[in-house]
Amino acid sequence: MNKATDLSVKEYMHTLGVQAREASQLVADADGQTKNKALNAIAEAIQDSSASLTDANKQDMQAGNETGLAAALLDRLELTPARIEGMANGLRQVATLPDPIGEISDMKFQPSGLQIGRMRVPIGVIGIIYESRPNVTADAAALCLKSGNATVLRGGSEAINSNIAIADCIKHGLSVAGLPEESVQFVETTDRAAVIELIQMQDFIDVVIPRGGKGLVKRISEDARVPVIKHLEGLCHIYIDEFADKEMAENVALNSKTYRYGICGAMETLLVNEAVAADVLPGLNKKLIDKGVEVRACKKTRSVLPDATAATEEDWVTEYLAPVLSIRTVDSMQQAMDHIKKYGSGHTDAIITGNLDRARQFTRQVDSSSVMVNAATCFADGFEYGLGAEIGISTDRLHVRGPVGVEGLTTQKYIVYGEGTTR
Amino acid sequence: MNKATDLSVKEYMHTLGVQAREASQLVADADGQTKNKALNAIAEAIQDSSASLTDANKQDMQAGNETGLAAALLDRLELTPARIEGMANGLRQVATLPDPIGEISDMKFQPSGLQIGRMRVPIGVIGIIYESRPNVTADAAALCLKSGNATVLRGGSEAINSNIAIADCIKHGLSVAGLPEESVQFVETTDRAAVIELIQMQDFIDVVIPRGGKGLVKRISEDARVPVIKHLEGLCHIYIDEFADKEMAENVALNSKTYRYGICGAMETLLVNEAVAADVLPGLNKKLIDKGVEVRACKKTRSVLPDATAATEEDWVTEYLAPVLSIRTVDSMQQAMDHIKKYGSGHTDAIITGNLDRARQFTRQVDSSSVMVNAATCFADGFEYGLGAEIGISTDRLHVRGPVGVEGLTTQKYIVYGEGTTR
Repeated sequence: MNKATDLSVKEYMHTLGVQAREASQLVADADGQTKNKALNAIAEAIQDSSASLTDANKQDMQAGNETGLAAALLDRLELTPARIEGMANGLRQVATLPDPIGEISDMKFQPSGLQIGRMRVPIGVIGIIYESRPNVTADAAALCLKSGNATVLRGGSEAINSNIAIADCIKHGLSVAGLPEESVQFVETTDRAAVIELIQMQDFIDVVIPRGGKGLVKRISEDARVPVIKHLEGLCHIYIDEFADKEMAENVALNSKTYRYGICGAMETLLVNEAVAADVLPGLNKKLIDKGVEVRACKKTRSVLPDATAATEEDWVTEYLAPVLSIRTVDSMQQAMDHIKKYGSGHTDAIITGNLDRARQFTRQVDSSSVMVNAATCFADGFEYGLGAEIGISTDRLHVRGPVGVEGLTTQKYIVYGEGTTR
Repeated sequence: MNKATDLSVKEYMHTLGVQAREASQLVADADGQTKNKALNAIAEAIQDSSASLTDANKQDMQAGNETGLAAALLDRLELTPARIEGMANGLRQVATLPDPIGEISDMKFQPSGLQIGRMRVPIGVIGIIYESRPNVTADAAALCLKSGNATVLRGGSEAINSNIAIADCIKHGLSVAGLPEESVQFVETTDRAAVIELIQMQDFIDVVIPRGGKGLVKRISEDARVPVIKHLEGLCHIYIDEFADKEMAENVALNSKTYRYGICGAMETLLVNEAVAADVLPGLNKKLIDKGVEVRACKKTRSVLPDATAATEEDWVTEYLAPVLSIRTVDSMQQAMDHIKKYGSGHTDAIITGNLDRARQFTRQVDSSSVMVNAATCFADGFEYGLGAEIGISTDRLHVRGPVGVEGLTTQKYIVYGEGTTR
């Protein structure tokens, strides 16, 4: 398919779409046992195919080296034995999660005598578009399968051989469990036109989830004709209130910045109430410097931290994903919330305070997918939230916000029981 | 604004968008008492303005008569004293609903020690696009306001004077409660270009809800760049199983067809298991004929009802919204479910059965926003479902399915409490 013309790409994607829609009914109706059998069989196939996965990956790595792929991307691309093991374990872990499909909730009798509630059902067909990491192929397939959806996966061209090898394991596992192989389909062409088809096939794709950098997500959102669950950037803030415990503030801020620089839950800007700036900042600053973090500070902050670089307007809108932190001293919680509203990305923002009113007001008014009190922003993650696994973190407002697990890949229909009830 | 050029329509809509976004933060933060004060003040203003509303409506009615508006549309357009009273009562009723905003649910401790749950928050800015009925102006404003959203309303050009008069009452009520008048804005131009702007202003509009015929909804879905919550057609089925109580089947089917022909929950196609067709159909057919309903039947059915018109393929895909019913005799529940999957609109479908397995299988496998057992499809309605009021019935899969009440106009964010918790 790699040399396909535009027309054949269109036809190819249309075929995938038709097959996905057809398979989706069977996956939706499959019971938990069958889906788990498939997940475990895929895990086994991946472990058994360790050698061939490594070979396929070596082709991608070599091609990546030849085309001068950046070291960070090559690292993401690589399938080490530990990562292959990790994929298999991830699949088995998803198998242990409770089956979300068919769950009935909120059954209540209404004045008419009808008993009305909701049943959790799959969305239908989910398109996943992602970049270099080949493990996403297995992770995304697992979550979509568990939630009863058919899936069309489109990975990065640099990982095409690895992804096709993983997709073969998935097909094998599906057939072991008696599920149609078309329940999870991998797009085997690297042609960009395939992405356009995927995000515009309204008849066959119910939602698209892009997993990748801001550029990818923006492009897809702009061109999509099907709904998109977006994960844009995580420009996370911590506000240290004047009622914060000094030691707690220092610990949480330090952890939020340095736990891992590259995650979307990393703190990028620290806001400090001027009443406690002189108390908290010098000690924190020393620890940040010890960890190799560069501090960029506003004018007021620099009166306390004279050695810090001056922050520019650009700093407030930058998701560093690196050992850099911008610090602004504010005169009130309101000013902190205004800053978050103006510059934040609605991902995860936290307050450190011992004051109940402040905590309640902050959680109510800050409009982010996660609002935290006295906790490190780096906790923003599906596993930590008890979702079992996550397919991404939605910064969208509709359908699902924050970490998206198996439940976020489902929807609810109403079920109504009567006894021959008429109006 | 009526004679606005395209450029000024663009500017005008942009201004509405900016104002809506600004107002949305204040509506979102408003407490329940304030929002209810506004709702009751709007109700009072509408009652007090009965005379001027009637005058404005007379202008629209006269224009409608002159342009030869169909009688059904003229009927929808008319503001009688009873309808004005109805609008005011609707507003007061929404005021009595519990405030959905700030509701916290599912707070659970996680292994990290963090306590994590969800808080219900407004979506932001909602655009409503509707046709002739001017009462939608008040109804939609009430539900959006109650759920803490700012609203931009775009009504049909034939109701422009009535709508502007109602919008004035809304502005007055908002200011009585100290809420910004821009919390609910009515688009005062009838230029079609305004709709295009409204559904493409991604920075200012978070979701658009079209309320109107299939044509309107399709057009808007195709051109929209913001998410749309669609209400497409209601092609509802009842399947009479061989384990159905004969009398119950007759009553529920008759009620589902004849309660009101024009509602989206009306039954359009009846599917009958061949084992009970001869038992159930003749009696039901007689009652349908007595009510003036025309029956169009498949070949098998006509062997039982020889006087019925022959149904064509077209009948299975037609939402009559009229005293017409298509009947098909099927050989099994599976065939009934296949029919519903092929021809249905995913709105509301019901089974009549006394058999538990059949009921469970039907509710699990039929993929409609409401699946009913032994109940009339005409119950598909927000009031009947206990939602207090409804802004429409979503046939979409994402965000909200089925009747959409105040809760469907909200979303949830995560809130996370720690005690200085770090990773």
